[in-house]
Amino acid sequence: MAASEVNAVALGGGHGLHATLTALRRVTTAVTAIVTVADDGGSSGRLRRELGLLPPGDLRQAFSALAAQDGGTLWAEVFQHRFGGDGALAGHAVGNLLLAGLFEVLGDPVAALDEVRGLIGVTGRVLPMSAEPLDIHAEVTGLDAEDDAAIRRIRGQVAVATTPGQVKRISLHNARRPGEPPKACAQAVDAVLDADVVFLGPGSWFTSVLPHLLVPELHDALVRTKATKVVILNLIPQPGETAGFSPEQHLDVLFQHAPELRVDAVIADRDSVPTPARLRRAAEALGARALLSDVADLAVVGRHDPDALAACVREALGLNSMEGQ
Amino acid sequence: MAASEVNAVALGGGHGLHATLTALRRVTTAVTAIVTVADDGGSSGRLRRELGLLPPGDLRQAFSALAAQDGGTLWAEVFQHRFGGDGALAGHAVGNLLLAGLFEVLGDPVAALDEVRGLIGVTGRVLPMSAEPLDIHAEVTGLDAEDDAAIRRIRGQVAVATTPGQVKRISLHNARRPGEPPKACAQAVDAVLDADVVFLGPGSWFTSVLPHLLVPELHDALVRTKATKVVILNLIPQPGETAGFSPEQHLDVLFQHAPELRVDAVIADRDSVPTPARLRRAAEALGARALLSDVADLAVVGRHDPDALAACVREALGLNSMEGQ
Repeated sequence: MAASEVNAVALGGGHGLHATLTALRRVTTAVTAIVTVADDGGSSGRLRRELGLLPPGDLRQAFSALAAQDGGTLWAEVFQHRFGGDGALAGHAVGNLLLAGLFEVLGDPVAALDEVRGLIGVTGRVLPMSAEPLDIHAEVTGLDAEDDAAIRRIRGQVAVATTPGQVKRISLHNARRPGEPPKACAQAVDAVLDADVVFLGPGSWFTSVLPHLLVPELHDALVRTKATKVVILNLIPQPGETAGFSPEQHLDVLFQHAPELRVDAVIADRDSVPTPARLRRAAEALGARALLSDVADLAVVGRHDPDALAACVREALGLNSMEGQ
Repeated sequence: MAASEVNAVALGGGHGLHATLTALRRVTTAVTAIVTVADDGGSSGRLRRELGLLPPGDLRQAFSALAAQDGGTLWAEVFQHRFGGDGALAGHAVGNLLLAGLFEVLGDPVAALDEVRGLIGVTGRVLPMSAEPLDIHAEVTGLDAEDDAAIRRIRGQVAVATTPGQVKRISLHNARRPGEPPKACAQAVDAVLDADVVFLGPGSWFTSVLPHLLVPELHDALVRTKATKVVILNLIPQPGETAGFSPEQHLDVLFQHAPELRVDAVIADRDSVPTPARLRRAAEALGARALLSDVADLAVVGRHDPDALAACVREALGLNSMEGQ
């Protein structure tokens, strides 16, 4: 298969997903993003609370990553534009408001997201992991002055991402019907099953990467798919949810949250791995080989270099790195 | 000239302009709306105050009228969609937010409005009467309990449109630089000069129709243009700004605000004119013939019937009424 025909799916949210999509789009035109819908902060959180819709921000960011690679139309720029000032609209991106309007008019988030592709001129597809807003809960230690091991339950993406405690485990809940398990977006499940390669990470580990594994049908599709599965590790621990986490700890919590999941490759930045042997062991526990490479952007701390990451993706897929350039 | 090639310009705002555009679009594809930008109420007023931009609501409504005639895309529907609820976005139309974002990104309202044409699939053009937000001031009597003839000055489109007093005269001011006269949008001036026919009204007389005459360059273009000039009168007096006004009083205040303006035809609804002879005299003072016809929509009080108005427009232009259907 030519690199440009590889059917690639990336799961995540926020800046991490942006990095994966930017790199993937250099390898193949057939890119699908499956995006977390558990955000409750910022412009997305306000829209979600006010209108009861999917939080649009991570979906918009995924489009933005794809549009930047595809040239994008004027609308791609407007989509990303944020209102300034200190009024009711301050901080809202136009794309978030447009997505909210489309969700309301069409009543179907997937149809709405597919309409955006033509508007902003992207070839890739952006799907939500669920068509309904979800809530993250976390079990956290270190929040209790009396008992450092006491487990406290905290709720919401912002609370989990910024906790001063240690996140032990997360769970995912249907925000509209708290008693029910999160329901996967059917098109996202199909995309995983039809993919040649699926990527998890990088990104906020507990709040953008692991949530996908906690949507039962999406988890099952990830376990069942014949796609090559690749985990891309973060370059640095994230203050709050993964403060002090080693690269192998990232893999450990992934395994804890989805023990049935087998992975083919783990991509890590060479300089971000203090003890390569430990990472290799943790990767092997998931069935994966570890690919250590120089994938960090030396100019921006914590950001992947898209070309280096693209080259590493080709290596993970066994593709000639000169193909599809 | 075939009816479908007539280059028609309609000046106004709100529901009145909507009615003219709906009718005109049935006569010709070359329709340009020149829209008031003095609104300070509702979603437009909030956006104007918060972001310092042109109030987008009347511009959006003009697009909506054109889109309804042209079939319109999904985006035309989204453009008109209003957010509900009771939060920060309640009452904002998506199109107003999109226009605000486009204004900020492009920094040029005319370029922004021209981009919307392709998005929502309209052939007509929508221009602002000025590229900067304007303020309406009015001299009003009847607000002073002691002296019914005392003149009070009130400010803002909403205040003028809803005054319990009698509006005597309005003036228009540059909202950003109050000392300067309102500056016309250059493309609007050109459109008036290049038009075959120009329409004034119907609509809120003091706050949507007369303001165009108080932008000096636009006034001069209206005086100089070789286009046929047609005034379309309202069907009923508007509570507030024109409460109790007879049809001829509408023409009288138009003459008072633009004594140099000559008009070719005045279209009025037969049943809305109690004394046709008086209307004819008032029309003659402007150089116009009065065309009395049945143009009211019998199902909705105060609304023009688009087909009847289109037929009357053809008559005013001396066009065969079967052309361009």
